[in-house]
Amino acid sequence: MSNKSGIIAPGGTIGILGGGQLGRMLASAAAELGLHAHIYSPEESPPAAEVSAHVTCADYEDEAALRRFADSVHVVTYEFENVPAETARILAERGLVRPGPLALATAQDRIVEKNFMKAQGILTAPFADVSDEASLRAAVENIGCPSVLKTRRFGYDGKGQAKIMSADDALVAYEEIGRAPAILEGFVSFEREISVVVARGTDGEIAPYDPVENIHQNHILHQTLVPANLPDAIADEARAIASRIVRKLDYVGVMGVEMFLLPEGAGAERLLVNEIAPRVHNSGHWTMDACVVSQFEQHIRAICGWPLGRPARHSDAVMTNLIGDDVDEWKALASEPNTGIHLYGKGEARPGRKMGHVTRLYPLDKRPA
Amino acid sequence: MSNKSGIIAPGGTIGILGGGQLGRMLASAAAELGLHAHIYSPEESPPAAEVSAHVTCADYEDEAALRRFADSVHVVTYEFENVPAETARILAERGLVRPGPLALATAQDRIVEKNFMKAQGILTAPFADVSDEASLRAAVENIGCPSVLKTRRFGYDGKGQAKIMSADDALVAYEEIGRAPAILEGFVSFEREISVVVARGTDGEIAPYDPVENIHQNHILHQTLVPANLPDAIADEARAIASRIVRKLDYVGVMGVEMFLLPEGAGAERLLVNEIAPRVHNSGHWTMDACVVSQFEQHIRAICGWPLGRPARHSDAVMTNLIGDDVDEWKALASEPNTGIHLYGKGEARPGRKMGHVTRLYPLDKRPA
Repeated sequence: MSNKSGIIAPGGTIGILGGGQLGRMLASAAAELGLHAHIYSPEESPPAAEVSAHVTCADYEDEAALRRFADSVHVVTYEFENVPAETARILAERGLVRPGPLALATAQDRIVEKNFMKAQGILTAPFADVSDEASLRAAVENIGCPSVLKTRRFGYDGKGQAKIMSADDALVAYEEIGRAPAILEGFVSFEREISVVVARGTDGEIAPYDPVENIHQNHILHQTLVPANLPDAIADEARAIASRIVRKLDYVGVMGVEMFLLPEGAGAERLLVNEIAPRVHNSGHWTMDACVVSQFEQHIRAICGWPLGRPARHSDAVMTNLIGDDVDEWKALASEPNTGIHLYGKGEARPGRKMGHVTRLYPLDKRPA
Repeated sequence: MSNKSGIIAPGGTIGILGGGQLGRMLASAAAELGLHAHIYSPEESPPAAEVSAHVTCADYEDEAALRRFADSVHVVTYEFENVPAETARILAERGLVRPGPLALATAQDRIVEKNFMKAQGILTAPFADVSDEASLRAAVENIGCPSVLKTRRFGYDGKGQAKIMSADDALVAYEEIGRAPAILEGFVSFEREISVVVARGTDGEIAPYDPVENIHQNHILHQTLVPANLPDAIADEARAIASRIVRKLDYVGVMGVEMFLLPEGAGAERLLVNEIAPRVHNSGHWTMDACVVSQFEQHIRAICGWPLGRPARHSDAVMTNLIGDDVDEWKALASEPNTGIHLYGKGEARPGRKMGHVTRLYPLDKRPA
């Protein structure tokens, strides 16, 4: 559906690729703004379908379905960064896709992503491209051990990654990922993992939420603490880095920027960018309970050309993911005061599956350490 | 669908009679808790259908459809108090209906409602039953003028009401309402209109939100201010009255209790109950932005037998309804900081139609007068 102004008014329709919990929370946020959501997902009855006006069940390679989808919505967005390039191209031919192809291409490939950061003067872990056995050996030689071998594409929640302690380890890991194009990253002994969820509007306005601290368990996000308790200068630097990234990518929408905080004494510059996610981000879920405008509403505002909401928070917060059968504790969680509960309506609580999250709120500056 | 414990766990289905904005916000709240919503509405594609898993389009008199609906859900609730008694009876035969029939019967008839208050020692405007011309004359004689003639049933937003300045006025107004069963209420010159939105759980727990002040325009709610800036003793009394009403009605769910605050000097007791609404209430919409648990989530928690959320607010607030073409101002509203926007996805902005609302937030005790 063509749209010359690029502004989508109430009554318009947002197409969302992907029907998981992120698509679901985006669809609910769209509805709150009087917009309709149309979910496109290969899965039958995905979580997002339940709160959306329209649903297309089709593969991401189904060109006819993609064209019908594009023609029925005013803008297309996505809940996951691994949208096939050809899918994005077909959709972009028919209408608006936000965030745009540059962000997708950058986030989909760890080498492209790292080179982008380098070009912007943004620090990352040392890295080397691995395209065959020879380049793997050279990479281990240059980067040293310990290091981490990762597939260039399609990794998430620690999948497609292996810690490397020797050249032999590297070969085994390389076989295990089927000699897929890879990256060897120097192991960073960071003090903490932080992230900034940042939005950029169609007019170039940029709104970063406060930096948060993330705690992982089994390579899956366990908790997000806000604020991250950083020195002001480092918090400002984190916001500035995230803002620079979205500006340089001419980005429209919400992005998650994951960073490592190096220990004091590591030098003047203590922040490395780990990776970016060109979408709403698990480390921004706390905004649903602690901000007037959540990251989901902010993303919808951005891709619809609306003014961005102010990213200030009214409360401190700890967000905890409910993984697998954690969700069985719903009644105890519902008994807690000042706890926002969000369940994703998924049927089966398989181990490792994100079933929901809770956000515990505290008055500003009153969060227990 | 029978349910012996009366507790509906995540994965369960809430049946909602009515598909307007209240049903829509209830359905969204149910989804946030991992529950499914099933809307029952005579209207094709009502606003609530868009965010609900299931929709039945049928009349409230369609017994077969009502039975199928009751059999497909774990509990039935409603967004409006004028559910026909026979509809409620058919549904209650097959499963849980919350709030229950006593609250419906009390709220549907202004005479029953007033007599209930009287029996509880709760003050109301003076009133008299009008069932024919003779009782109308007697009522005007007893209550005096000015007074207000109202239909006993089915009035809302000032419909079915007329101000009476003389016995002749009363006759004209009585003809205009088609000599329907009516009530004559003494005109109360109140200082302010306030309300309390209160919840009661299946275990008898009661949670009143803070009393709010309501400002009407053309008999439609225009703004809700929270807090109501009442002396503590009066705020406490307002909460106590609302709590007594839900306890005495053995109520389960959220109720709106509208009250008049009489001017100082009116005597020790300055609060009269105007009317009750056995449902979520427009004067509770501010809770979506200023509380961890909104009135919509609170209602779902209550009718599902969950623990109630704490009704404390983290911010002061002014809620403003967007009536008719007020909604055209969406872009200017979206530019305001600290303003939560809620649009109902209704097609046509007819005059007097509630199209959405906004809530402007302020830090506690910092709301401008």
